[in-house]
Order: sequence, then C-alpha cells, then structure tokens
Amino acid sequence: MELIHGGDVEGYRLETGKNALDFSANCNPLGVPEGVRLAIAQAAHEADLYPDPLCRRLRRAISGMESVPEDYIFCGNGSAELLYRLALAIKPKTALITAPTFSEYELALRTVDCRIDYFTLNKQTAFALTGSILDSLAARPDIVILCNPNNPTGRTIERSLLLEIIEKCKKLGIRLVIDECFVGFLDDPAAHSLKDLLPQNPHVLILQAFTKLYGMAGVRLGYCMCSDTALLELLFKAGQPWSVSHLAQRAGIAALREREYVARSRQLVQAERPMLSSELEKLGFEVIASEANYILFSCSLPGLAERMAKRGVLIRDCGNYRGLREGYYRVAVRGHESNLELISTLRVCRDEIIDSI
Amino acid sequence: MELIHGGDVEGYRLETGKNALDFSANCNPLGVPEGVRLAIAQAAHEADLYPDPLCRRLRRAISGMESVPEDYIFCGNGSAELLYRLALAIKPKTALITAPTFSEYELALRTVDCRIDYFTLNKQTAFALTGSILDSLAARPDIVILCNPNNPTGRTIERSLLLEIIEKCKKLGIRLVIDECFVGFLDDPAAHSLKDLLPQNPHVLILQAFTKLYGMAGVRLGYCMCSDTALLELLFKAGQPWSVSHLAQRAGIAALREREYVARSRQLVQAERPMLSSELEKLGFEVIASEANYILFSCSLPGLAERMAKRGVLIRDCGNYRGLREGYYRVAVRGHESNLELISTLRVCRDEIIDSI
Repeated sequence: MELIHGGDVEGYRLETGKNALDFSANCNPLGVPEGVRLAIAQAAHEADLYPDPLCRRLRRAISGMESVPEDYIFCGNGSAELLYRLALAIKPKTALITAPTFSEYELALRTVDCRIDYFTLNKQTAFALTGSILDSLAARPDIVILCNPNNPTGRTIERSLLLEIIEKCKKLGIRLVIDECFVGFLDDPAAHSLKDLLPQNPHVLILQAFTKLYGMAGVRLGYCMCSDTALLELLFKAGQPWSVSHLAQRAGIAALREREYVARSRQLVQAERPMLSSELEKLGFEVIASEANYILFSCSLPGLAERMAKRGVLIRDCGNYRGLREGYYRVAVRGHESNLELISTLRVCRDEIIDSI
Repeated sequence: MELIHGGDVEGYRLETGKNALDFSANCNPLGVPEGVRLAIAQAAHEADLYPDPLCRRLRRAISGMESVPEDYIFCGNGSAELLYRLALAIKPKTALITAPTFSEYELALRTVDCRIDYFTLNKQTAFALTGSILDSLAARPDIVILCNPNNPTGRTIERSLLLEIIEKCKKLGIRLVIDECFVGFLDDPAAHSLKDLLPQNPHVLILQAFTKLYGMAGVRLGYCMCSDTALLELLFKAGQPWSVSHLAQRAGIAALREREYVARSRQLVQAERPMLSSELEKLGFEVIASEANYILFSCSLPGLAERMAKRGVLIRDCGNYRGLREGYYRVAVRGHESNLELISTLRVCRDEIIDSI
C-alpha cells in the first residue's frame, strides 16, 4: 500500500520518534479551532449512538452558511469519499480532468474502469486553465472534474471561462464537478464559488470540505452541493449510510460558527503567501503564482524533499503528479515563524545539494 | 433517502425534542468506555492532521489483541464501509447470502450489479443455518457472506458446518466473508471466531467492528482480517486513503485496552438476555433463541413499533428484512432497569393494541 499524498506525519513519528514540521499537507495553518475541539470532546459522550445517516442538523447548518437549500447538500467522510461515491453512483465511461490536478479524481474514476482524458496545463501559462478546454468538451465525456483553485498549482479558473464551460457542458449533457475545497483561502471566495448557479444548472456538482479551511483533516468531513437531487439519492446508495461519524457531524456544526477563525486564516495566508513566494524565488526556485494557501515551485535539486525530511521539515514532492515531473514541490503557507523555518531549512538543503554535486 | 436501519435517535430528537430509549440499535449497553471518550478528546487536539492511511499504530494494536499478523488487517470507516469497498474491489458477478441477514450485504453487492441468491433460513429451525447451504455452494457464486452470530436472529453457525463451508468454498474457488461483528457478545467468543484458520485459508475474510462491542457506533471503526494480502491491497485502492479518521484510530487503540469493560458487557448480556427472553415470552411473543446481545421476536400486534416510539422507546421493526415479514421485531439487550422499562412499555402497548382491535 503506497502512500502517494503528503501529510505522512505518523510515518515520520514512527520512524524518528519526533514530530515533523509539515508543509506537505495544505490545511489551515491555525490548526483545529477551539470550538471544534470542544464539540468533538462533547460529542464523544454519545459516540455509542449511530450517526444520523441524513446528517440533518449538519446539513441545516451548512445550508444556512452557504445559502444553498438543504436538499442540495450531501455530506461525506471527507470530500475524497464523495469522489468515490460519485464514480460508483454514475459509473462514467469517459472523463476529462486536467494534468496536473488532485490525483484522487483519477483514482476514484479508475475504480469503475472509466477511460480518462487529460487536459494538459502548461508551465508556459503558469498552469492556468485556458479556453482550449472548450474544444476538449466536444468529445462529450460523461464527466469533467475541475479543481478551483487547482491543487497543486494554486491557480483559479477565470470566471468567464468557467461560465462558458458550464454552458457547453449543459448543452452537451456533460456532468461537471467543480472542487472548491480551497476556495475559502482565496482573497475573495465569493468571486470564485459557483454555488449561486446551482439551481439552474443541475449538471453541476460542487465539492467542498471542512478538511482544509477548518483544519479538520483528521476528522473527515466534506460535502457536495447539487440541485440534481436524484443524483444525491444515488450518492446515498453508493455507500454505507453511516459514513459521516457523529463526531464529524458535531464538529462540522461547531466549525461553521468559527467565522473569526476563518477571517484570521485568510488574513494570515494573504500576508504570508507573498513573503513565502518571494523568499522561494530568492532561493533560486521557479515559483508558480498561487492564489491559494499553498505554493508550487520547481528547481533542479535532486533529493530535496528527502533532505528536508531528514531535518524534520516535510514538503510535498510533486514528481508523482501526472503532468508534472521530478523537481516540482508544493509547500503549504503556514504561520510566520514556521514559514521562516521552512525557508532557512530550504536554504541549508539547497546549499548542501549544490556542494555535493 | 430512506432510513432502513434502527438507531434513528436523531430523528426522534428532531421530532420530539426528547431522547429516546433506544432498543433498535444493538450496541454495547454500557455506552462509550471512559478510556475511549478521553482518547477522542485528546486526539481532537491534533485533528488538523491527516489520518494515517495505513492505520499503522491501530493495526499494531489490533494485531496484538487478535493474535493475527498486522499484514492481515485492513481498517475501515466501520465494517459497513468495508463491505462496499470489497464489492467494488472484486466486483463479484454472483453472490450467496442468507435471508434474513444484515441488509448492507445486499445493498453493497448491488452497487456493482451483482446477482444475489438467497439461502432462506426457516422459522421451523429457529433461523439456524443448516447443512443444505453446502448444496447451494455448488452453483459456485463468486462470494458468500455469512453473519455469525447472524443479525437479526442472534443465531450462531455450528462450527463443524462452518468448517465444511470453508473447505467447500476453498475447493470451488469461492470467496467467503464471515461477519463476526457480534462474536464478542457470545458467551464464548473464542469457540466461534474463525480467525485462527486465516493463514491456511486466504479465501476467507473476517469482518470485525468496534461499533458494537465497544459502544463506538458514532465513531466509525471496523476492520477485516484476511491472509490474502493482495485482496487487502485491492481494498485499499477501492476508496479514499483517509477513510479511517484520526479520532477513530486513537479511539480504537484506547478501546483495545478496555478488557474489564468487555468482560462486564458480556456478563451483563449473559445475565439480562435470559430475563428479557423470558419476559418477552410471558407477553405472548414468539422469541427466537438468541446467543447474542439482541433478541428477535414475532407477534401479531399491528403498529407495535410506532406505538412504542410514541412512548419514547425505539424497537427495530424487522418487517423490511428479506426473509422476514411484518410482525418481527428486534430488541437490544441493555441494562437491567432499561430492560424492565422495555418490558413494561411493551406490555402497555400490547394491551392498548389488543383493546383497539
């Protein structure tokens, strides 16, 4: 069983007996909100009860926050679970995704033997999605999955292009999934989310998660929003009824009250991202202009991630992303002190590698 | 989205504003162990970290408790998730299950369009599995799923018959799943579990859960044991890597230390089950002799479950189990006071229904 993602802090602990400074996962730098932590401890008292399969209270809370009807909301054990459920529910025969992007799209689609076409994003355009994807839609794939902002590039899709994609998918009968898991870290989330367009676009499904924005990766909670309620019914049947734990449901309700925490996180990312980008460039790395809470960069320093790990700092080696190659790395934007430590450790490792060549 | 299982305490709360006395789910009557509750509260501090996809510490702990190699163990978001993963991983074309039994077997198999044959258990033999299932194996289904003790009947499968089934499945190349989720509540679990036979029987997969024995239904944690490690690799790929939350992993490790709690639970069930059976019979109900922590009975009182719910006591209407019919109910064995309340409420409802006919 191969680990292909970042965030293997447990592996690091088991190997070294120490905690790593983790830049390889891209969650909220502020950690678990206090209110969420307390809600989990409280919910643990009744953890012997089966979770509500319909997540009724949680969906009500999400509905209030998102201004999307409860009926449009379906919750999952992290948004990753929803990808596998969706694949199983509709068993698409053909799909279009970008390269690079989050690898679970591909892995989920493969479980139902879907044929996948890749729309390659180019370094020349800083991995931005371009209008030529509209031509690729002509092949009428059963499903298109786009990540906005994209992981690992941190690039958003231009709204006018997104609207064109939505229209073309509608016309051609293509299911369109937009993963907005990182939208909350953008400077202006409302300018990028497409949730307002859901009622008149039942072919669009938006993925969301508590994982990143609320520092809840270990809790497992995600949801999707879609006005095609028959599809949500299929999602319900494509897995066990109790996939969202009682702990996660209560944690999610508590998280939605953490408005000040979210505002603070966004400010932190806004302040630290330019600093981090600039320092990475000063180190001689090629930095992809990110709008999110993580930064993709490239360099030609063999073994950089391994060397960083030896010094207790984990960064995401992106060499295994389809559409990228060896020498690409992703780092999370974290708190100021941690970011400085990242930069200084990167400097040390860079110099060591150069000396050793 | 239809709720077909018991344990809808949240629905009851939302409808009435009160807590129900729940006999419709069949979990440990002692509730969440203190150690598990504390472990969850503690783990909540680092709930921003991704869970370990390989559940390394948890699998080590399970391995120690079960005396089964770590490599044979795969953890899931409750044992129910493992059923869906298994279906997707091997996509069986044909299956044999009993009727009645836990309905998630059928629902999981249907997600991959599996054709299901049912081996009917008869009331005449108190729903015991009989040797004629050996004849049904001749059709060579891809997979057979048996529940031991069976849900909702509480009947175990005779060991000699199980050994014959294992041998015949091996000879015919049939994958055999044995769900032992309730085995811990039996008077002598070791006499019923087949885990010792795993090394020489890679076609056998045993399902286990923390849900029932450790009062952790709301946490979501189950596992399977199988010596076919290539199958476990397929299970890993048949879903997201992070399905077992960090909270569940830590809760599971803590649960395995709760030996006194388990012993106490077993004693409680041993003491209360005969009392409850006898009282149910005194009420004029036909009781199926159970060996587990729940009891199936039948009666001809229309609307019994609804009437009980109105009085705040939930029992499981088993009319929707394939192989049963209207008039079958399942109740959990709980603590003495609760059991007495169940009986007295059943008596009141019985008399009301009789009066109203």
